[in-house]
Order: sequence, then C-alpha cells, then structure tokens
Amino acid sequence: MNDTVKYLLDEPRIPKSWYNLMADLPSPPPPVLHPATHEPVGPDDLAPLFPMSLIAQEVATERAVEIPAPVREIYKLWRPTPLYRARRLEKALDTPARIYYKYEGASPAGSHKPNTAVAQAFYNKEAGVKRITTETGAGQWGSALAFAGALFGIEVQVFMVRVSWDQKPYRRAFMETYGARCVPSPSNETASGRAVLAKDAQHPGSLGIAISEAVEVAAGREDTKYALGSVLNHVLLHQTVIGQEALAQFEIADDYPDVIVGCTGGGSNFSGIVFPFLGIELRGGRKVRVVAIEPAACPSLTRGKYAYDYGDTAHLTPLAKMYTLGSAFTPPGFHAGGLRYHGMAPLVSHLKELALIEARAYHQTKCFDAGVQFARAEGILPAPEANHAVLGAIEEALKCKEEGVSRAILFNLCGHGHFDMQAYIDYFAGRLVDQNYDEGELAMALAGLPSVRAA
Amino acid sequence: MNDTVKYLLDEPRIPKSWYNLMADLPSPPPPVLHPATHEPVGPDDLAPLFPMSLIAQEVATERAVEIPAPVREIYKLWRPTPLYRARRLEKALDTPARIYYKYEGASPAGSHKPNTAVAQAFYNKEAGVKRITTETGAGQWGSALAFAGALFGIEVQVFMVRVSWDQKPYRRAFMETYGARCVPSPSNETASGRAVLAKDAQHPGSLGIAISEAVEVAAGREDTKYALGSVLNHVLLHQTVIGQEALAQFEIADDYPDVIVGCTGGGSNFSGIVFPFLGIELRGGRKVRVVAIEPAACPSLTRGKYAYDYGDTAHLTPLAKMYTLGSAFTPPGFHAGGLRYHGMAPLVSHLKELALIEARAYHQTKCFDAGVQFARAEGILPAPEANHAVLGAIEEALKCKEEGVSRAILFNLCGHGHFDMQAYIDYFAGRLVDQNYDEGELAMALAGLPSVRAA
Repeated sequence: MNDTVKYLLDEPRIPKSWYNLMADLPSPPPPVLHPATHEPVGPDDLAPLFPMSLIAQEVATERAVEIPAPVREIYKLWRPTPLYRARRLEKALDTPARIYYKYEGASPAGSHKPNTAVAQAFYNKEAGVKRITTETGAGQWGSALAFAGALFGIEVQVFMVRVSWDQKPYRRAFMETYGARCVPSPSNETASGRAVLAKDAQHPGSLGIAISEAVEVAAGREDTKYALGSVLNHVLLHQTVIGQEALAQFEIADDYPDVIVGCTGGGSNFSGIVFPFLGIELRGGRKVRVVAIEPAACPSLTRGKYAYDYGDTAHLTPLAKMYTLGSAFTPPGFHAGGLRYHGMAPLVSHLKELALIEARAYHQTKCFDAGVQFARAEGILPAPEANHAVLGAIEEALKCKEEGVSRAILFNLCGHGHFDMQAYIDYFAGRLVDQNYDEGELAMALAGLPSVRAA
Repeated sequence: MNDTVKYLLDEPRIPKSWYNLMADLPSPPPPVLHPATHEPVGPDDLAPLFPMSLIAQEVATERAVEIPAPVREIYKLWRPTPLYRARRLEKALDTPARIYYKYEGASPAGSHKPNTAVAQAFYNKEAGVKRITTETGAGQWGSALAFAGALFGIEVQVFMVRVSWDQKPYRRAFMETYGARCVPSPSNETASGRAVLAKDAQHPGSLGIAISEAVEVAAGREDTKYALGSVLNHVLLHQTVIGQEALAQFEIADDYPDVIVGCTGGGSNFSGIVFPFLGIELRGGRKVRVVAIEPAACPSLTRGKYAYDYGDTAHLTPLAKMYTLGSAFTPPGFHAGGLRYHGMAPLVSHLKELALIEARAYHQTKCFDAGVQFARAEGILPAPEANHAVLGAIEEALKCKEEGVSRAILFNLCGHGHFDMQAYIDYFAGRLVDQNYDEGELAMALAGLPSVRAA
C-alpha cells in the first residue's frame, strides 16, 4: 500500500464554470435589504461598490456560471490543486476512516483566496476600474487581492486591521511586494476611520471598521471599487472550483465522501468545497453529511442569531439575513484571524436553517494540537484557520474508530501556516489560551441588531 | 497565445533514479583527504558521520543511482514540480527570449532542500540511526530535515547560527513544529561551541561553527549521525530529480535551454537543475551554456582560490578541493543566508576548472529589484537566494533583446520567500545595503588555507 496517495487532474480539467448552488436550493435565501429603506437592494444600489458583472453573479440563478478565459489562465498557475489521501494521519490515528484533504495552500498567496481574488480583479479590470479597496484581518485575503491586482495591473488598497498591522509586518510586506498599498485601520483616510480615532486614538481596529473604510473610499471615487474576500454569493461562487475538482478526484479515487468538514469564518472556503457536493444531494443524488467548524470565541453559527444585520461597523453595507453575533460584537483576539467575523455568509446561514449542514465550535488550543499532529504526519503545516478543519476531521476519524466503521472524510486544507508562525510559537510556549467572548457583550450586540420588518 | 504555460508531468514520471554526473566527467574531481593524514579518506573515516549507503553514494560512479521506493513515496507529496514558461515576465521585459523556470517552492518546506533531506532521512532510518544532527543558517535546510525527520520518525537536532536564531524565530518555530530540537550555535552542548563562547560569549555564530558542533555531536554518539544540506556529492546527486524532470518537460515543450542559470551557495540547487543537462553535453549531446550566480559578498567561485580546505571552522571535517574563500572567512550578513558559505561544492568547483560552467557575482539590492519584478509579473515571491537566479535570467533575457535573438533561458526558482519577508521589508525601507567583504580578511583567510601536498 502506498503511503502517499495524491489525486491530480490535468490542466484542461480546471472547471470551465463555477457551480451556483442557487439553482438547486429548495427555497431561495431571503433578499438583501437596503440599509436605509429596508427594501430589497437592486443592482443600482450596489453599482458604486462592484462592477455590474459581479452584481449579476450575486443574484444569478443559472447552475453554471462560465469562468472567463483570462481567469482560467491565471488559475493554471496553481490549479488543479491536489486531493490527498491522508494515509500517514490515518495510521497515526489507527482509524479505519479514509481521510482525504484538498490542499489549497500551494497557490502563490498560500491559500484558497486567490480563487475569487483573480476573478474579482478580472471583472473590475474589464469594467475599467483603476483601483480596488478592501480590508484584511489575518492577511490571507489582502495578500490574494494584492497578487491578483499585480497580474491585472490594478491598484490595490488594503485597510489592514491595526492590531494585525502591528503584529504581522511580514503579511504587510508580502502585500506591498505585490505592489499593494496597505493602510492601518482605523485610519485618517476616511470619515468612518476618523470617527473611531476621535473616540480612541489607540483603537486596535476590527474587520467591521476596516470594511467601513474600504467601502467608503470605493463609494466616493468613480474609478475605484470595493472587493470582499468572503460572505457574498459571488465570492462563494468563485470558490466552487475547489469542490468541483474534488468531485472529479473522488471519481478517480473511486470513492465518495460520507462527511465533509470545513472551517468557517465568513464561509468561503467551506462553501467552495461543500456546495458542489450539496448540489448533487439537492438534485436527488448521493447524500453527504456536512460539518462546519467555527471558533468557540466567535461562534456565529452555533451561538449567533439568524437575523438581518450589517456587514460592517459603521452600517454602510446592505442588510443581509445571516447567523450573526451582532455587528457591534468584537471577538477576542485569537490566532485564527481569518475566522474573526461577526456574521456568516447568508448562503451558508440559509443552509443551516434548512438543516443541510451541522455546525460545531472548537477552542483554539486543541485545534493547534491537531495542526501539529497533522504537520508531523502529513508534512504540511496548516494555517490556524485550517487547524479547525483538521480537528474536525480527526474527531470524525476517531468516531469511526470507536464505531469500528470506515467512512470517507473530506476536509479542505485551505492554506499553509508559513505566515502564522507566531501563533505556533505562542502555542508551544503555552501562551495560547482558550479565550471566551464576553457573554454580556454578546447579549448587548444581539440586542442591538437592527429591527427589520419580517422579510 | 496563453499567458500561463505550465508543463506538468504525471506522478509515474518522478525519476526512478538520481543522475550521477561522475559517470560522464572527462576527469574525476580530486579526492577528499583525511584532515590529519592528508591521505584520501576511506569509508571507515566517514562512518561515524554518515550511514554506509550515503558514503557509497559519495564515491559512486554508476550513472543512475536508484531512488528507494519510500523516498519516491514522499517525493509524491509535491513532485513532479511544474516547469513554467514566464510569459508575463517576457512581456514585462519586452524580450524575444523564452524564459522558463522550474519551481521547487511548493514543497512542504518551501524549497528544493527536501529532495535530499528525505533521501538522507531514509538511509539513516534504514541504518537504524535514531538521531540526526545538522546545522542551518537561513533555515531552509533545517526546515527540510525537520520535515523529513518527522515523516521517518527520526529525531532531528539543528544547530542554528545564533544570529539567525535571533532574527528568524519563525524559521525556528517551523522546525520545532515538525518536532526538531533547535539549538543556537555556538552552544554549550559541544567542546567546539564552548571554545568559541569562551573567547566571545556574544559570538553571533557562523555556518562553519555550527557544522563543527553538529559533526562533534554525531561523531560522539553511536546512535547519531550527521547530515549536510549541500556541498557533498550525495547531496548534489539527490537534487538531480529537478533537472531530470526539467528535461522531460522541455521535451513536452518541444524546446531546449540554450542557457541555464542557477544561484550558488554550497551548490545543491544549481547542481540539481544543471547536472542532467551537462551530462547530455558530456556524452556528446547538445551543448548548453551554464551560468552560476553567487553573491558578491561571498564570491567563492569568482574570487576564491581552488584549493584544499576544511568545510568547517574547527577543522573537524575532511579536506576537499574546492573554490574557497578560506574557512576563516566570515561573509558580511546579507539576506540570502543560504548563500553564505565559504566554499563551493567540490563537483561544482571541478566543473568550473573544466570550463564547463561560468560564474557571475551580484550585489543584493539589484537581486531584490529582480525578485520584486518577478513577483509582480509571475505572481510567485522568490526567496532571496532565488532572486540571484532571477536576476541572472533577466540579464540573459535583456541580452537577447539587445541582440535581437530568441534564446531559451532556464532557471531554478529554488524556493518561495514567505519566511524571508524581513529582507523585503529592509529592501523597501532602503535599508538593504550592498555589503562588501573585507579584502584584508579575505587575503588572510586565503593565506591561512591548509598546506596540502599536491594531490
């Protein structure tokens, strides 16, 4: 028996279209509402922020959305990505489970984020946009957009949460090497940033504030648009190349996942691997159990409310119905920065409502235990976000062992941890604590959810 | 015309043997000598440090050395690596040249070093070795051996040059996550380390000192051997998977390199891509121009002497005839730590003597200029070492433009720069200076070369 089992696909098998889950849902998700009127937003409401082609994708209902040739050209740099069978981990766990992982960390930016960054940069370029603004927390998304901007010759301005700006100079340097301009947020460059700084000149920032700043800049300039790295339908759509490739790779493996595990922050890597499999189930095909793993310190799916909420702190964005901890909620500063968002993608939230997916929340230290075990067995050192998925897969595999059954478990290893070594240093030094959010703060943030007429 | 041209190979085309240049050389390189007797070393002299199988490879003369199945199993994690045509860079340079690069940075450790680390760990495991000691400067090699040790269940102890230990905590954490034990060198764990510390308790360390420490520990324990990440024949041998794959990929591309450019520190990534092509030339096949690029601050091939010298500072290693700046030479602290070694691999030195390769030396800032241009055009951010090869390739491409001819240029992109962002930060901040070595120190180091009867 071989120790390394890697399923590759030829380049022509990079998907030619993205898979749109909308086409197969039993009911559509509730509409996104205008923040002032609470009426469903129309394309014109979003036009200051996004090119029309992306707005169209946000509400598209056809099952297959063609991937433009220039986007596939750039995907070819690192796609198709490998699907591995984790035989060494299986041996270490002594489990009858068949563990598979799709590895997105070999992209030039080190994560799955370029799948949508490249697409978004392309559509913006096509629309004549000169500059894209965005926010970044951990830096995976900012790096991906900086990379995509360099290839399409578009300026990228990244509002980087100040605490990350201070703690992650290497992430910043990575973005700047691609030519992006990084600004610590809250900044003096926007009214929303200045308002925060006026109250607290040392404010550490948050994703919600950074989104407000990026949106404000884009809304105020004709040649500038905004890009988001998760949450929105079109972003999730672009990530479905992951699951589509995995489907083809499972055919080669002559196997099929019984359970899929993904980590969830905004929901994009999770959706990318899950949606194509769920689509099969929804069209009457084979069922698959799906488990979303979120951080216990920011547990939108397991502790949040399914309600209309803003995407940002300054309430500049539309209202979306989603599992949310409230836009005023500030999660504690744990290490999986990519999972520190108060809301969950509306589409993923809708799936939870439809009971098509489960959710579990983990504290971070046992996720790092799992990540280190994975690194020593399989040789790839995961990003802290991905460690949540690793632990989820290990728990499923140990359950197989207990029950004496072999199930196929698939998870998405969404990025490598080469930029996250400080987290591993803290882990080995015993400085990594399992932080809990403040229950009182959560209650207040939930109480402060906007009141929206039943939609 | 496609923008992304990537030549892949199927997994079964991972080479089944390493290519041994020894078989095709017009004359063998001078023998390695015992440090005390100055007689050629025999297998028994090396037995305390290396398993017999590696000692045999050190002097092997057959053209093809079979790659053991368990080594190929692990190679499958990331091999075959892609060969890219750098069309976006060609456009940016407006050159008629055809630029190709082989990318070794997608390995789990981020560089070409696992090609030999995995092989060395395998042969040690096979010989019943429990622990491997080694040294690391920039950390690429230490990371690779830590990775390989984890997969084979061998303890790895890394003597890390103290200045790197202080400056690169993330590299250290990377090795420790794989389970390796890192020790700052000079250390109190060895007599050679204590001798250095007795003179200077704050000594910043050097690769030469770290080698002495690692060798001393291995020589003193039955269950412990030593591993080197470059310079030695068997290390260069293991890297030839790179060039062999590239040959197969050029066949698919229906092209052939007119010139191959590689960066040289100890010589391993250079040899890996170059030897299989040189072998064809030496067997009467197509000729190829080969250019070694070294740092101007540590220019063994362009400013060193071809002479017998020690590999380490404490003179515990055998004497090898090589281009050397003298084992007492301490290069200034520039950022391509992987190129900071006083000597050059004996086999590479021999090729220079035979006029089969050329050499050029570059200062670091223009290498970073080239690396940033490459990152923005091709999307991959190179390690500082690899930037030397990038600049070499760009210069060759610009020469094509001047002359109005199209030549095929191949270089090895030996690693990504995700662990080297401090160097990029210094570059963008204008803090990167082109350091020169001290001419007086070089003269003294050369004057101090051991006197060896003509061999």
